Amino acid sequence: MLSELENQMFTQVGPGTPGGEWLRRYWHPVAISDKWSGIRTLWNCDKKIAFNDEVGTVSDFGKRLGMFAGKPVAVKILGEDLVLFRDGSDRLGLLGLHCPHRRASLEYGRIKADGIECCYHGWKFDVEGKCIDQPAEPSTLPFKHKAYPVKEMGGIVWSYLGPGQPPILPKIDVVARDDGVRALENWGLWPCNYFQIVEQTGDAAHTAVLHRGAGGERRELWQELPKVTWEENEYGMKTTLVRTNVTRASQFIMPTPVRLAQPWPAGKFKWPRYSGLWKTPIDDTHTLLLHVTFTPYLEGRKPELPEGLTYDITEELNRHRWQDYEALISQGQIYDRTKEKLMTSDGNIAIVRRLVREGIEAVQRGEDPKGVWRKPEMDKILDFSRIVVDTTLISEPAT
Amino acid sequence: MLSELENQMFTQVGPGTPGGEWLRRYWHPVAISDKWSGIRTLWNCDKKIAFNDEVGTVSDFGKRLGMFAGKPVAVKILGEDLVLFRDGSDRLGLLGLHCPHRRASLEYGRIKADGIECCYHGWKFDVEGKCIDQPAEPSTLPFKHKAYPVKEMGGIVWSYLGPGQPPILPKIDVVARDDGVRALENWGLWPCNYFQIVEQTGDAAHTAVLHRGAGGERRELWQELPKVTWEENEYGMKTTLVRTNVTRASQFIMPTPVRLAQPWPAGKFKWPRYSGLWKTPIDDTHTLLLHVTFTPYLEGRKPELPEGLTYDITEELNRHRWQDYEALISQGQIYDRTKEKLMTSDGNIAIVRRLVREGIEAVQRGEDPKGVWRKPEMDKILDFSRIVVDTTLISEPAT
Amino acid sequence: MLSELENQMFTQVGPGTPGGEWLRRYWHPVAISDKWSGIRTLWNCDKKIAFNDEVGTVSDFGKRLGMFAGKPVAVKILGEDLVLFRDGSDRLGLLGLHCPHRRASLEYGRIKADGIECCYHGWKFDVEGKCIDQPAEPSTLPFKHKAYPVKEMGGIVWSYLGPGQPPILPKIDVVARDDGVRALENWGLWPCNYFQIVEQTGDAAHTAVLHRGAGGERRELWQELPKVTWEENEYGMKTTLVRTNVTRASQFIMPTPVRLAQPWPAGKFKWPRYSGLWKTPIDDTHTLLLHVTFTPYLEGRKPELPEGLTYDITEELNRHRWQDYEALISQGQIYDRTKEKLMTSDGNIAIVRRLVREGIEAVQRGEDPKGVWRKPEMDKILDFSRIVVDTTLISEPAT
Repeated sequence: MLSELENQMFTQVGPGTPGGEWLRRYWHPVAISDKWSGIRTLWNCDKKIAFNDEVGTVSDFGKRLGMFAGKPVAVKILGEDLVLFRDGSDRLGLLGLHCPHRRASLEYGRIKADGIECCYHGWKFDVEGKCIDQPAEPSTLPFKHKAYPVKEMGGIVWSYLGPGQPPILPKIDVVARDDGVRALENWGLWPCNYFQIVEQTGDAAHTAVLHRGAGGERRELWQELPKVTWEENEYGMKTTLVRTNVTRASQFIMPTPVRLAQPWPAGKFKWPRYSGLWKTPIDDTHTLLLHVTFTPYLEGRKPELPEGLTYDITEELNRHRWQDYEALISQGQIYDRTKEKLMTSDGNIAIVRRLVREGIEAVQRGEDPKGVWRKPEMDKILDFSRIVVDTTLISEPAT
Repeated sequence: MLSELENQMFTQVGPGTPGGEWLRRYWHPVAISDKWSGIRTLWNCDKKIAFNDEVGTVSDFGKRLGMFAGKPVAVKILGEDLVLFRDGSDRLGLLGLHCPHRRASLEYGRIKADGIECCYHGWKFDVEGKCIDQPAEPSTLPFKHKAYPVKEMGGIVWSYLGPGQPPILPKIDVVARDDGVRALENWGLWPCNYFQIVEQTGDAAHTAVLHRGAGGERRELWQELPKVTWEENEYGMKTTLVRTNVTRASQFIMPTPVRLAQPWPAGKFKWPRYSGLWKTPIDDTHTLLLHVTFTPYLEGRKPELPEGLTYDITEELNRHRWQDYEALISQGQIYDRTKEKLMTSDGNIAIVRRLVREGIEAVQRGEDPKGVWRKPEMDKILDFSRIVVDTTLISEPAT
Repeated sequence: MLSELENQMFTQVGPGTPGGEWLRRYWHPVAISDKWSGIRTLWNCDKKIAFNDEVGTVSDFGKRLGMFAGKPVAVKILGEDLVLFRDGSDRLGLLGLHCPHRRASLEYGRIKADGIECCYHGWKFDVEGKCIDQPAEPSTLPFKHKAYPVKEMGGIVWSYLGPGQPPILPKIDVVARDDGVRALENWGLWPCNYFQIVEQTGDAAHTAVLHRGAGGERRELWQELPKVTWEENEYGMKTTLVRTNVTRASQFIMPTPVRLAQPWPAGKFKWPRYSGLWKTPIDDTHTLLLHVTFTPYLEGRKPELPEGLTYDITEELNRHRWQDYEALISQGQIYDRTKEKLMTSDGNIAIVRRLVREGIEAVQRGEDPKGVWRKPEMDKILDFSRIVVDTTLISEPAT
């Protein structure tokens, strides 16, 4: 149980808030890139939600925000209104949404070779935010508009919204490896605070209860309540679930993703598969979920899906996802931690909150929090395939 | 004309408010029971309203809240979020909506023989709120979750949300008699405070004006402005309207229902018919309307409807109901009594407000307000057929 | 750049606010009259917006508020809820929406020869707000309900919501002349404050930038950034735009309209055409746009439209209007002037703000602001055809 103030600390994502400043020390995935030519899916969830004074579905908003289509689009990240665009020379830009002149939205801007031009009076900005044209003025007054660095990796657009020199964009294996098949899944915009989704990381009991009856061929395995251990490590927290016939581990990586071993997209698909689930805070009450699955080639062979299966969601998995949606959303837009009753089986939550609290304190001391890397030796693929295991899945040959 | 503070006193329904505490001393109808096999109708009103951050129709929300279908459902009563369910042993339960563990909604709970199990981590509660299982814990910590007593009578689910020993559930004839035909009508969720609907009780002039042109065969009678008398009695207030060719009385029963003599469902249906209209406060700006009509057998004969008529709403009555809806809703979500101009024809309002004010003061003194009965001799059918008359309707034979 | 307080001064329209009191010294167009038998159009804009707790389209709400159909209708002007109706003797009335008795809405009122009767208890009011019947009372207590003077001119219903003796309703040529064809265009309800639309008056650069590519046959002309001069005059501010092959002027008339010379409804329609665009503040965040075009007879001949053209909007003009809509709405519901960066090309804004500020100060001193006329010599048609010119359009013969 937390105090009201502590709950705010963990759930506020805007600029100037303790949690928001901590989140700003990391790269976050913004959207699936328009240049990604691999597998991409969108969760078909027609639940109506409100966002930015509009009503739409979880899918609608998920698509608009998280599936960059190449044209300028209004997005929101960590509570900031931004425009994501690609200039005429293929450079990505992420600028403040409203033109600093008269505040018209740059989502209506026109793309030029060297930037984006406001629709209203033609002020032009390059991807670094430099104002490079004010056509109705005798001369252009140079100044910088709000702009954030953007990178592409693994078919995903990433951005860093913090101060100073951005740290390394972590090369988490599922988004960084190229020796396999990657599927990028947009799970839509979920109408709740990101932190209650993060707190599901390492939740041992919910698999056996919430997903009881939705585990495909592994349904029997999952009904058993596992023995669980949680341990802090350099990335965040590792969770190990031991059941009679399966041992399964997952890794929480600061600040939001979890790396999992996946029986999906379908239980019968026996091939080593890894996944990562990122929760990008859009504002205090909305979170964009981007899920990546990666299936490596084995001895040069492409993964073979059983007949009739695609990488898209199965009926069984759809039920599974709805179960998570209902449980998490019904905790409230912002889960009220002043009215909770944590027990011994919620040990993961104690660790996750401690890690975040220490991260916030580090930022307040002017230090890098855990999971922010600047040493060149960390600028490599971070292989979690030895940490995140599932004993029912085929392993990769040792390399 | 009231002050802003007085208006709040009459219109607030939440826990801890003067009006809310007074309302909590009475049983309120929550929904039509899933076990009711008699006549049940739902007003088909497709007016769009907002409720709990959702948009739906008066009918949609009325059905969801007021037509219990047997499966766990999120309801709201007197501003409290609750789950209504029936356990596997047919017991009704009305518990706090959010599981005290991690606040997932019990509307997604699973029904067990002995209670309801939270979808998320399986905490189980019986209908009295006792936590009887915490599967992921080494042992179950016993404690009580919020739970309110529930009863069924006349096909309706009733609950008492107050402190201490519940008083007698009043056996108002239309819901308690079994020697006739009862029709349970759900009029939907009206987007206004309950008290302005209560204040229409005993409103003599509105029948002649608002419903002019919508009275079926009695249209002529009703156009005449009646002579009216209001008198306080042990149940609340009796209103008597005298017109040239008809005398008609109604009874306001604390805290919300009105007992009427009914020419409905159709003017041509000449049989003694009685009705009661309950206004269950959902929150400060929404009210669930449940209407009950009762037609007794006469000398053992079932009531005979004229050809072509059913108990469902007639076109004429639909117009009548829309007239009330428009008048009451357009008073504002919460009728602003600091801007009213009451006259001699509003004498009913003076009495109703005095009764409620006295009720609030009684509660504040720690006493039972009027209409709360604990003496065993009140635990009988309360027969209003001698008080609530309409001289154009056949009377029952004296018993 | 303004302070927060200054921004409120320019954008608040309600009673008692500095800006609202200034706006109340002028007549405003309320709606197109039901008696208007000439050309009337409605912009078909299906953008969803919220207004008064309802969701509808720009067109829906524009039609409901700005196309008076003869039946009582709830409108809102300068933040005040009103009912617009025509009594049984063809007199227009504009009264407070809620009956002063019990606050039922007069939009459900019944029309009588001498006024409107509240649906609920029959209180009747004449168009001057006098209460002339209270049927359930022994005698009618005379008093006045809120009522504003209403006039019809040019097919438009106008009202004055201010104190004291109303000034002259200005006979601006496009609404006052009868020697030609007038088209009344309802552009719908725009979900933003009126003042950012007013500030577009005299915006020289936006035509060349925002409307680039949407100018029909004049597209080439308009792409050139013009030389611009702004000058204050007795009506407000005249703007003159000089380009290589065209000189064009417009006139801002206090408090909201702009008089333009129009190449519309289609570029090929070479006939002198004038227009005026009124922005009626509905509340702080909604504005009703009424546009009037007037094409005079020339030597007694009616204007001849090229084949295939009507007075309705063309595809090209529709694109043009959407451009304005996107630019203006995306400035925010209330354009935040504490975050703007005005330059030399925004000289029009400096003048408009000064004019309004002086108007507000005049009202605060108890004087008439600029553009309020009471001298009988101003009660004549105000001919702007010599001021508002476009050198590509045929002029009228000198009179």
